[in-house]
Amino acid sequence: MLPVEIHGVRCWVKAENLQPIGAFKIRGAWNRLSALSDEERKNGVVAVSSGNHAQGVAWAAKRLGIPAVIVMPRNAPKVKLDATRAMGAEIVLYNRPGEDRDEVAAREVGERGAVLVHAFGDPWVIEGQGSIGIEAEAQLGRAPSSFIACCGGGGLAAGLALACPKAAIHVVEPEGWDMVGQAIAKGEIVHVGEDRRLTICDALQPDATKPINLAVLKDRAETGVVVSDVDVRNAQRFAFSKLKLVVEPGGAAALAAALAGKVAIDEDTVIVLSGGNVDPDAFAQTIVGEG
Amino acid sequence: MLPVEIHGVRCWVKAENLQPIGAFKIRGAWNRLSALSDEERKNGVVAVSSGNHAQGVAWAAKRLGIPAVIVMPRNAPKVKLDATRAMGAEIVLYNRPGEDRDEVAAREVGERGAVLVHAFGDPWVIEGQGSIGIEAEAQLGRAPSSFIACCGGGGLAAGLALACPKAAIHVVEPEGWDMVGQAIAKGEIVHVGEDRRLTICDALQPDATKPINLAVLKDRAETGVVVSDVDVRNAQRFAFSKLKLVVEPGGAAALAAALAGKVAIDEDTVIVLSGGNVDPDAFAQTIVGEG
Repeated sequence: MLPVEIHGVRCWVKAENLQPIGAFKIRGAWNRLSALSDEERKNGVVAVSSGNHAQGVAWAAKRLGIPAVIVMPRNAPKVKLDATRAMGAEIVLYNRPGEDRDEVAAREVGERGAVLVHAFGDPWVIEGQGSIGIEAEAQLGRAPSSFIACCGGGGLAAGLALACPKAAIHVVEPEGWDMVGQAIAKGEIVHVGEDRRLTICDALQPDATKPINLAVLKDRAETGVVVSDVDVRNAQRFAFSKLKLVVEPGGAAALAAALAGKVAIDEDTVIVLSGGNVDPDAFAQTIVGEG
Repeated sequence: MLPVEIHGVRCWVKAENLQPIGAFKIRGAWNRLSALSDEERKNGVVAVSSGNHAQGVAWAAKRLGIPAVIVMPRNAPKVKLDATRAMGAEIVLYNRPGEDRDEVAAREVGERGAVLVHAFGDPWVIEGQGSIGIEAEAQLGRAPSSFIACCGGGGLAAGLALACPKAAIHVVEPEGWDMVGQAIAKGEIVHVGEDRRLTICDALQPDATKPINLAVLKDRAETGVVVSDVDVRNAQRFAFSKLKLVVEPGGAAALAAALAGKVAIDEDTVIVLSGGNVDPDAFAQTIVGEG
């Protein structure tokens, strides 16, 4: 972890953009794939992802010798599509919005007899993402008081909640995509509306959370926090200039919430910088302030 | 340290851009300033630097309550000038080329009765930079086989040579600024010629090395390696896309040499990424390939 000073408070960032695939998703994917039986490994796995879970599954599959099919949106960042393909995974593209990615994945699973590795609604995946919490506690030398984590479907947040039972869990979502925050508030799963708002956080656009994530988070996560594209770009610039880290929009959402004063922090707060897979053109525009 | 794969070999990078001031210079500066006597502390310190040693001295001086005057080139990156000023140091500007920075510094030292903290020709500074070697060995769990380090005046290289007596030391300098490589080859100090070539490595433009650095390096450093601006920009792009790290031109010189195949690497090689203080416009141009 790296120290960071925000509004005069020195707290911590967990720089998951430094993982081999540039994102924390390697943790859950490895945990799931390495637990497959020999029989399951033969028919391979199918995953649905805008790019980071895709790379995590492709990375683990390559090392374990498991065939992997990844269902990805046609408009995913090129850096993520290229990296997933380069790791040897078979890619099936779908149109976002329009096609139902879960239907596309179900078809692939059916045809191949493969195991679906869900990006967040999977107990092994949740456990794997939770290793961030175990590590953070070991590195800090004590239990973190709170985690600030970006949230797509709630896999990371649920993992942290289980790994660190005493820590407050702050769930940060992009404007218009706070399906987890809304689900926690209502106590039931909420689906994204028809008016899907544009967001630069390509990694944080789930249609809805899953029952397992809601079950873990409903009594644990603090009220959902929402960040704007402006908040996120400010955080990417902060990470560039102060931390010397390349962070993608979704990966900067938690930092964005802290910098915007939307979440309370103390010296035992851990902010997860969840990924750094961003196209050069987009990153260049952001750091020069044009984005 | 972070693992990195270069031409099929998995070796290591020491990411000194993640230091609080964004560069390794914090090590030598802290080691020198914290060793000053109470009497010496009163009159303060003077340093000459294009920006990273400046920030290191300013950072240490602020924490130790020591007045600091930093002599900086008027054309230093704005990010370095601003950061040094923000840490409370008094800045004296000089013109590069034209004015003799050592004369400017000597005048300040004389007027104030201050201690000169030389950026590389100082035993405490060299010892401090060498802590990179001690740490690398502890993190690797064995002695590194070799270090690839950028080289301005030779403070970092000399520190590594003393800290890890069995490691090969590869000294990497920008084209036209290989005063240390030439000095090692000739066995005597070599001054930069009148035709000062332009380089994007603002941190690696010494007029000459110093006797203490040459004394340490002459029987230890491998033949000097020279990198071009093109090599350096390629390395900055590699650090951006593969490592998710922001590295300034001079900070990427060692990685540039490895990527360009100019230095042999093995699995116990440690490449020092020495700093990440780069203006956003310059970094944006580099990553989109326009620089």
